[in-house]
Amino acid sequence: MQRKSFRHMACPIARSLDQVGEWWSILILRDAFYGATRFDEFQKGLDIAPNMLTRRLKALVEGGMLERRRYSERPPRDEYLLTGRGRDFQPVLQTLLAWGNRHLAPEGPSIVYAHTETGVAADPVVTDRISGLPMDSGFEPMAGPAATEAVIRKIAGRRATKERQG
Amino acid sequence: MQRKSFRHMACPIARSLDQVGEWWSILILRDAFYGATRFDEFQKGLDIAPNMLTRRLKALVEGGMLERRRYSERPPRDEYLLTGRGRDFQPVLQTLLAWGNRHLAPEGPSIVYAHTETGVAADPVVTDRISGLPMDSGFEPMAGPAATEAVIRKIAGRRATKERQG
Repeated sequence: MQRKSFRHMACPIARSLDQVGEWWSILILRDAFYGATRFDEFQKGLDIAPNMLTRRLKALVEGGMLERRRYSERPPRDEYLLTGRGRDFQPVLQTLLAWGNRHLAPEGPSIVYAHTETGVAADPVVTDRISGLPMDSGFEPMAGPAATEAVIRKIAGRRATKERQG
Repeated sequence: MQRKSFRHMACPIARSLDQVGEWWSILILRDAFYGATRFDEFQKGLDIAPNMLTRRLKALVEGGMLERRRYSERPPRDEYLLTGRGRDFQPVLQTLLAWGNRHLAPEGPSIVYAHTETGVAADPVVTDRISGLPMDSGFEPMAGPAATEAVIRKIAGRRATKERQG
């Protein structure tokens, strides 16, 4: 089943989802952050069908999140390295991990992000780099410089709802 | 096509993806953060088929991310409100938005998170609440207290790769 494309939506969240393309891609990126670079490393870590893995790696290369590099000529073998765009995706993985640890790990966390030197587990929170304030309250989505009419209407609708609810 | 379930994986990222269930669900949550509560508000905002929207709302209620509340008896009408678990998902939306704005909005951002009082656009960055350090470097995934053998092997593999690469 071909899912609907979100590419033409103005919303940056929809575009991000469209670019990443598939749940598997997020787990492939996760394993790339764990240090996986080779086809068999991804396959072992993910228990994914080879043809599906081939398709997802190709899509991640085309989307500019992984870079393919030949590491052996005979036999021809490629490895897959995170690009800058791919590495920039790490905050999404960190917030998904924090949410899963908080709400879906009744037995306790099996993976945490921890400080490399001290090994102390981190408590990841989205913060505004400019003001230093945590963004769990006091911030809201607003129309940006390139907002279309539809976006402005949607955000105006949000304000109207909030005012109606008091 | 039924996608593979990630529910039984130990990884909190995989469990989060499994719980959320579908790209549409993320956009439904996004619109809930924009203030949408009623079926027709979600439908208008998303351009989604009604039967798909019904299914996704039901799954989000069953997953504890939305709560259904009757707001009219005649005719019977329900609205959908974010639960604590649903509100806790906001950091994932904020990081997806930041990534989309950075990499997929050549015309400039159409939506930004901004401070409610000042209107100044934020630069969302994942930070460790404990140490106050930004988590774009200096942190890495480590086995947590409930790590299984498979998780420990995977993370050990990562270290071995990093040492091999030097």
